[in-house]
Amino acid sequence: PSSPVNSAQNVQRYSCLAYSGGLDTSCILVWLKEQGYDVITYLADIGQDEDFEVARKKAEKLGAKKVYIEDLRKEFVQDFIWPAVQANAVYEDRYLLGTSIARPCIARRQVEIARKEGAEYISHGATGKGNDQIRFELSCYALYPEVKVIAPWRIPEFYNRFKGRIDLMEFAKKYDIPVPVTPKAPWSMDANLMHISYESGILENPKSHAPADLYLMTKSPKDSPDTSDELELEFQSGVPVKVTNTKDNTSKSSPLEIYSYLNEIGKHGVGRIDIVENRFIGMKSRGIYETPGGTILLSAHLDIETFTMDKEVRRIKQGLSVRFSELVYNGFWYSPECDYVRHCIAKSQENVDGKVQLSVFKGQVYILGRESPKSLYNEDLVSMDVQGDYDPCDATGFIRINAVRSLRRKLT
Amino acid sequence: PSSPVNSAQNVQRYSCLAYSGGLDTSCILVWLKEQGYDVITYLADIGQDEDFEVARKKAEKLGAKKVYIEDLRKEFVQDFIWPAVQANAVYEDRYLLGTSIARPCIARRQVEIARKEGAEYISHGATGKGNDQIRFELSCYALYPEVKVIAPWRIPEFYNRFKGRIDLMEFAKKYDIPVPVTPKAPWSMDANLMHISYESGILENPKSHAPADLYLMTKSPKDSPDTSDELELEFQSGVPVKVTNTKDNTSKSSPLEIYSYLNEIGKHGVGRIDIVENRFIGMKSRGIYETPGGTILLSAHLDIETFTMDKEVRRIKQGLSVRFSELVYNGFWYSPECDYVRHCIAKSQENVDGKVQLSVFKGQVYILGRESPKSLYNEDLVSMDVQGDYDPCDATGFIRINAVRSLRRKLT
Amino acid sequence: PSSPVNSAQNVQRYSCLAYSGGLDTSCILVWLKEQGYDVITYLADIGQDEDFEVARKKAEKLGAKKVYIEDLRKEFVQDFIWPAVQANAVYEDRYLLGTSIARPCIARRQVEIARKEGAEYISHGATGKGNDQIRFELSCYALYPEVKVIAPWRIPEFYNRFKGRIDLMEFAKKYDIPVPVTPKAPWSMDANLMHISYESGILENPKSHAPADLYLMTKSPKDSPDTSDELELEFQSGVPVKVTNTKDNTSKSSPLEIYSYLNEIGKHGVGRIDIVENRFIGMKSRGIYETPGGTILLSAHLDIETFTMDKEVRRIKQGLSVRFSELVYNGFWYSPECDYVRHCIAKSQENVDGKVQLSVFKGQVYILGRESPKSLYNEDLVSMDVQGDYDPCDATGFIRINAVRSLRRKLT
Amino acid sequence: PSSPVNSAQNVQRYSCLAYSGGLDTSCILVWLKEQGYDVITYLADIGQDEDFEVARKKAEKLGAKKVYIEDLRKEFVQDFIWPAVQANAVYEDRYLLGTSIARPCIARRQVEIARKEGAEYISHGATGKGNDQIRFELSCYALYPEVKVIAPWRIPEFYNRFKGRIDLMEFAKKYDIPVPVTPKAPWSMDANLMHISYESGILENPKSHAPADLYLMTKSPKDSPDTSDELELEFQSGVPVKVTNTKDNTSKSSPLEIYSYLNEIGKHGVGRIDIVENRFIGMKSRGIYETPGGTILLSAHLDIETFTMDKEVRRIKQGLSVRFSELVYNGFWYSPECDYVRHCIAKSQENVDGKVQLSVFKGQVYILGRESPKSLYNEDLVSMDVQGDYDPCDATGFIRINAVRSLRRKLT
Repeated sequence: PSSPVNSAQNVQRYSCLAYSGGLDTSCILVWLKEQGYDVITYLADIGQDEDFEVARKKAEKLGAKKVYIEDLRKEFVQDFIWPAVQANAVYEDRYLLGTSIARPCIARRQVEIARKEGAEYISHGATGKGNDQIRFELSCYALYPEVKVIAPWRIPEFYNRFKGRIDLMEFAKKYDIPVPVTPKAPWSMDANLMHISYESGILENPKSHAPADLYLMTKSPKDSPDTSDELELEFQSGVPVKVTNTKDNTSKSSPLEIYSYLNEIGKHGVGRIDIVENRFIGMKSRGIYETPGGTILLSAHLDIETFTMDKEVRRIKQGLSVRFSELVYNGFWYSPECDYVRHCIAKSQENVDGKVQLSVFKGQVYILGRESPKSLYNEDLVSMDVQGDYDPCDATGFIRINAVRSLRRKLT
Repeated sequence: PSSPVNSAQNVQRYSCLAYSGGLDTSCILVWLKEQGYDVITYLADIGQDEDFEVARKKAEKLGAKKVYIEDLRKEFVQDFIWPAVQANAVYEDRYLLGTSIARPCIARRQVEIARKEGAEYISHGATGKGNDQIRFELSCYALYPEVKVIAPWRIPEFYNRFKGRIDLMEFAKKYDIPVPVTPKAPWSMDANLMHISYESGILENPKSHAPADLYLMTKSPKDSPDTSDELELEFQSGVPVKVTNTKDNTSKSSPLEIYSYLNEIGKHGVGRIDIVENRFIGMKSRGIYETPGGTILLSAHLDIETFTMDKEVRRIKQGLSVRFSELVYNGFWYSPECDYVRHCIAKSQENVDGKVQLSVFKGQVYILGRESPKSLYNEDLVSMDVQGDYDPCDATGFIRINAVRSLRRKLT
Repeated sequence: PSSPVNSAQNVQRYSCLAYSGGLDTSCILVWLKEQGYDVITYLADIGQDEDFEVARKKAEKLGAKKVYIEDLRKEFVQDFIWPAVQANAVYEDRYLLGTSIARPCIARRQVEIARKEGAEYISHGATGKGNDQIRFELSCYALYPEVKVIAPWRIPEFYNRFKGRIDLMEFAKKYDIPVPVTPKAPWSMDANLMHISYESGILENPKSHAPADLYLMTKSPKDSPDTSDELELEFQSGVPVKVTNTKDNTSKSSPLEIYSYLNEIGKHGVGRIDIVENRFIGMKSRGIYETPGGTILLSAHLDIETFTMDKEVRRIKQGLSVRFSELVYNGFWYSPECDYVRHCIAKSQENVDGKVQLSVFKGQVYILGRESPKSLYNEDLVSMDVQGDYDPCDATGFIRINAVRSLRRKLT
Repeated sequence: PSSPVNSAQNVQRYSCLAYSGGLDTSCILVWLKEQGYDVITYLADIGQDEDFEVARKKAEKLGAKKVYIEDLRKEFVQDFIWPAVQANAVYEDRYLLGTSIARPCIARRQVEIARKEGAEYISHGATGKGNDQIRFELSCYALYPEVKVIAPWRIPEFYNRFKGRIDLMEFAKKYDIPVPVTPKAPWSMDANLMHISYESGILENPKSHAPADLYLMTKSPKDSPDTSDELELEFQSGVPVKVTNTKDNTSKSSPLEIYSYLNEIGKHGVGRIDIVENRFIGMKSRGIYETPGGTILLSAHLDIETFTMDKEVRRIKQGLSVRFSELVYNGFWYSPECDYVRHCIAKSQENVDGKVQLSVFKGQVYILGRESPKSLYNEDLVSMDVQGDYDPCDATGFIRINAVRSLRRKLT
C-alpha cells in the first residue's frame, strides 16, 4: 500500500488533486494520468489573488475528468481564523499561522469532493521537507481514514524524474502544458486571505535581507499613508462582530467583510515579519510573512480579552493557546486534542465581549482604549484617589504571608 | 510588631527611606521624624531623568540624617535587564516588565545601606493597591529578613491623615517642605532606563485615550524620522555584547552604553503600549508604557534565540519564561523559584550567540537577517533545491504514524 | 471593618458559627455571645463519626439562637468527590485532598444558612496557620461577598486570652461548657466520609513515627483480612455508577452507597500516607492521612481513563489536573479559574465509560483488567501476532524524522 | 539508503547486532550473514537473569565474528536510574520507565562497540509496533549519526518470510540454530535490574487477568513475609547513598548494591502494576510491570524532596519531570531537550539531602519519618502550640487579597 504508483493498471482509479494552476501541479496532473489515474482537480479560493477561470481552463485542457473551484473564503474566516483569533494563536512567539490554518480548511473540502466523486486517492503538490504535506495528510486521514494519499514529491519515480524546474519545464513542453510566461520569482510564496508567506530560493540564506518588492499584500511603511486610520472593533465571545472606521464611519459586520476590511487597513505595512521557525519535522526554516488583518485582530483581541477575562483563567488559557498553536502548526487541526483545546478556549471566551479602539499607522497597531459590558476592570477598586472598600492593611498581611518562605529560608 | 508606629518612643530607631524627592516621600520623611525615627534617605539612579542634587539638598533640608544617592544604572542593565532579555520576559503577552525588574534592583541597595547603617526599618512611598509595595517588600524580606517595613500608605494613622494631595500640600507648607511649582500631570509616572510607565488619574478610565503629550521617552511615530535606522546587534549567551549602527558605524559595547544607545534609536516611537493588566493583588489596572530599547532587544533576542536554540529546548524554555515573567511581575525576584528559573533560562542561552540585523522605523522594529557560528539552521537540509541526505520517503512514515490515533479513531 | 469585635454594641448582630461540638468552637460560641453576637450554630454531617444529637444539645445549652445540623453526605460525594475523581486530583503527587474538598462543601451550606437567617457574620474555629481558614473564607467571600468573617484564632483579643488548651478549659469551666472527659489525643484530626487527617502535637516532629493506634478508618495491613476483596467498578463520564463485589455479588449504585462501600472495602489498610506537604501560606507541615475509598477510586479511574481517552487529550488534561489540585488545596474551589478547569476536565471525561476489575489486599489496590464500549484500545493494531493495516515500514520514517534534529546536530 | 538489504554484495560490511541469545535475534544473526554482513553480537548485562556464557557460545556457534558481553549494571544504576529517581520519573502517572531508561544505556555501549569495530550498521530485534525500536534508534542516531540501522522486523524481505514463530522455528532447524526447549510463555517479557515488563500474547486482551505465576521478580503479597522490613534510606543531592535495614543493620552504600538490596526488600510484592499505556506511535498497549526497588525509591525520594525543596521550585520541577518522563518514554534520552531537562532537574536536587525511614510490607511502602540537615520544615513555624514570629493577623490580609477577584466579581 505504500507505493500506489505500481499497483493498479486495469481498475478505474480516481484521484482528487489539489490543483493550483501552477507548473508543479499541472505536471502532477499529467503524470497522474500517465500513471493510470483519472484526475479530478480541486482548487480552493481562500482569498489568494488568482485567475480561477484560467486555472479551470488549464485543468480541463490537461485532461482533468472534473474541475472543482470552490469559494471557501467565508468558512475560512469563520471556522478557522476566528478560533485562531480566540486563541491569540502565535507559533514560537511570532508566526500567526496563516498557512497552517488554511490547510485544514482546504483539505476538508477536498475530502468532501473525493468522497462525493468516489475518489480513493487524494494527491497534492506539497514538498517532502515541509509542513504542508503533514497538515494536508493528517487532515485527510482524520476525515477520510480509508483514503490513499499520493504525494509525488515523496515518490522516487517522480522526484528522481523531476529533479529541478528544468525537468518540469521540459515535461510541460512535451505534454503541451502551458508554461508561465513571467519569470519565476527567486522564492516561493503561499497566499490566502490571511497572509502571504515567502520562503525558499534566495531567502534560504538567513542573512540575506528580503528584497523591498517582495511584499504583495502590504505597502512598505515608508510608502504607506502619512495619516493613521482609526478603528473600533467590536467583539462578542472573542470574535469580531463589527469594525467601524471612526474617521469615515465605514462599517462592516459580516465575518468575511470584517476580515477583508482589516486587510485593507493593514496595508499600512502591518504584520510584516522575517523569522526563522522550527518545522514539525525538526528543521529550522526561514520564512517571511505579512499578515495585515490578523495582526490588527491579535492586538485588539489580546486587549479585550485581558479586559474581560479573569486573571487566573487567562493564565490557564494562555497555556492552552500555546498548545493550540503548536497543534495547528504541526497539522493536528482535526485531532482529539485540538478539538478538546478548541472547546476549552471557546469556553474561556464566553465573556469576551466589548469594543476596542485602535489606530493603524505605518506598520504598527496602537490600542487607544476599550470598553465592555462584561469588563472585570473596576475603576473604583483600582483608583489611587478612591479607597473604596479595599483595605490597604490587607496588603500587609498578603505580603508577609507571601514572604513566609523567604523569611523562613534566611533565618535558618 | 504589626504597628511600628506606636511602639518606640525612647530608643534610637533608624529608618532607611526610599526617597524620590517628590511630595509624597518628602512628607513621609518628615512624618517619620515626627514618629521618632532617624531617617536615612536613599535615592537610586536607575536612569530616570531627575536632578539628583536638588533631591539631595531637599532631603538634607528636611532633616535626613544621611543621604544616599546611588548610581545603579550599570547593575540595573547587567543584573536585571539582561536576564529579562534572555527570558524574552513579557507579562501577559504584552508588558515588558520595566518597573517590575527595577524594584529588586533598588531594594537590593536599600538593604545594603540599611544593614550598613544599622537601620532596622525600611520605608517606602508605594501605595497599598499596587504591585510595587509587594516587589519592594518581598525583596527586602528576602535579603534582610529581620527588617521591619514601614509602608505609610498602609498605616491608618498616615493614610487617614493624608486623604489626598491637598492634605499633603498643607502638611508640606506647615513643615516647610518645598512644593512642586509645576502643576502635577493628571496621571502618575514611573521612569527608569528601561521604560516609563503612566497610570492613574485620567488614565484610570480604560476608554479614554492617552494624550499625545504623555510620552517622554519616545517621539510619536508621526514625528519620528522619515528614514530608518539600521542596526546590527551581537549576542553572546543570549545577552547583547555589541550594537552597531550600520549606516553611520556608531558602535557600543558596554552594557550600559548598548542599552542607552538602543533607547536613543528607539526614539522612533518604538515600544509604546496601552494595556489593561492584572495586578498580583487581583485588580485589573490600565497602564501605558514606552520601552524603546527593550522592545528592540526583545525582537532581536527572539530572533537569534530561535536561530540557535534547539526546537524542543525552546518549547521548554518558553514555558519557563512565562513563569519567570509572572514571578518578576509579582515581586519574587529574590525567591528560590526565581533563582531556579533564572538558572535554567541562563543554561538555555549557552549557545545563543550571533548577530541580528534590523531596522527601526516609526515605531516598528524589522528583523532583516541573522547569522551565527552556533546556528542550528541547516541551509542544505531545508533547501527546496538540494535533497541532501534527507530522504523524503521518511516523511510518509512520519505522517502515517502521526495519524495512527486518527485513523484508528475513525475506523472504529 | 477589620475588627468586628469592637464595632457593634447596640445593633442585633447575627453570626453563623461553624460548630463542631468540640472544646474550641464551644468556647468560641460563648465568646461570640460575650462580644454581643447572636449565634446560629451550624454543624455539617459530611460523614464524620460523631454524635450529632449530643452536639445539638450542647449548642442549645450554650445559648445558640438556632442550631443547624445538616446532612451533606450526598452532595459531598456528588458535587465534590466526583469532580476530584474525574481529575485524578492529587496534591504534590501524594495527598488526595480529603479535607480540601470538604471545606467548600461545608461553606456552601453555611452561606445558605447565613443568608437565610440574615446573618452578616460567619465564624469558624480554624487556626491562623492552616489552610482551612483560607478554604472557608475564600468560599464564603465568593458566595457571599458582603459577609464579614470572624476568625477568633486570628483576633488578638481572642488568641491572647486563650493561649493554650488550659485557658480554654478554664473558660469552659467558668461558663459551664461541657469539657471532654476522654483525654485529648496528642494530635489533632479531621474526619469526613473521604478521609481522616492527623497532624500537630507529637506528629509535628517529622521524624517521629505515627503511633499504630492512630488510624481510625482503616485497619493495619497486618491485621487486615488475609484474603483479598475483588471489585468491579463501573464508570460513566468518569464517575463511578456501580460497584460490585465479584466474590459475594454485593452491589451498590447510588453515589453515597458506592463511596461508603469502597470505604468499607478499603479497610484493608488502603490509602494510608505519611507526608510533608506545602501549605498555601508557605509553611511545610506534616500530615498523616487515610483515604481508603478515594485511593481505590483513584487507581480505578486512572485505569479506565487511560483506556478510553486519547493520548494527547490525556496529556493536556493531566496538566489541568495538577492545576485543579493546587486550586482546590489552596481554597479556590469557588473561583473563575476552578470553574473553568472543572468544566474542561468534565469535558475530557465524556467518553470515560467502562468497567475496571480490581482486587484489594492489605493496603494495596491491584488493577486486574478493564473493558469499555468506548475503549480506544485496538487489540489488532497493537498485536504482535497480527500486522493489521499497520505498515511497519512507516515506523522507519517516523524514527528518521524524529532524529532529524539529532542527526543534524552531530553532523555539524 | 532506506533498504540496506539490497545494496551491498561485494564490500565487507559489519553489523553490530544487539543479541539476546533468544530465537529471534539468533535467526536475525543468521539472516544478516545470509544478507552478506559480518555480524558482531553484543549482549548487555543490565541485571536480567540470564546465562551469558550460554549466549556467548550460541553466538559463536552461529558465526558471529566477534561476541561482546558487557556488564552495564553499574552505569545503568548511576547514569540512568539515578536521574530517573531525581525526577520522580513516572509516565502517565503509573509507569516507572524500567524499559525506557534501559534502552539508551544499552544503545550507548552498542555504539561504542560499533565505532570501535568499524561497523557501519547496527541491528536489533525490536518489533515495528513498539517503543523500543524508537528508543534504540534515536539513541544510535544521536550518538553515531552516520550509522545505518537494520531493523529486520521492519524490512518486508524479513517480516514476510518470518510471519510467525513457526517460520522462525523452521529457519532455526534448517540453520542449526538451537531452539528453546522450554515452551514459550504465552506473553513476552523484558527484564533488567530495574524491572520486568510483561506484554503481548494472552495479555493483549485488556480484560483478561494476569496469571498468578507471571511475576518473576516479586512474590505475591499473599506469599510475602508476614513481618515488615524497615529501612532507612539516605539521600545526597536527590540520589540514594546508603540504605540500612534498621532491623538487622544490613547496610549498603554503593549504587549497585543499594539498588539490588532494594530489589531484594521489594520482593514483598512491591511495585506490581497492570496498566494500559499510550505508546509513542499512538497505540494503546497493555503492560504489566514489577519494579520493586524503583517503587521504594520513588516513595522515599518524593518524601525527602518535599521535605527539603522549596514549594514553588517543586511545582516547576514537577512540570519538568512530566516532560522528562515523556521524553524518556519516547526515546529521546540523548536529545538537546532531555539533556536540558536533566540539567534543570539535577539543579533542583542540590539540597535534597537527608534520611527517610520506611517500612515495606506485602506490596506496599510506608513512609514512617524523615530528617534532613537541609530541611525547609520549620517545626516552630508550623506548630499549633507555638506562635513564633508568625502573626496570624497577616493571614487575614492574605485571604482578603486573595479574595479580591471573587469579591469584585460578585459585587458588580
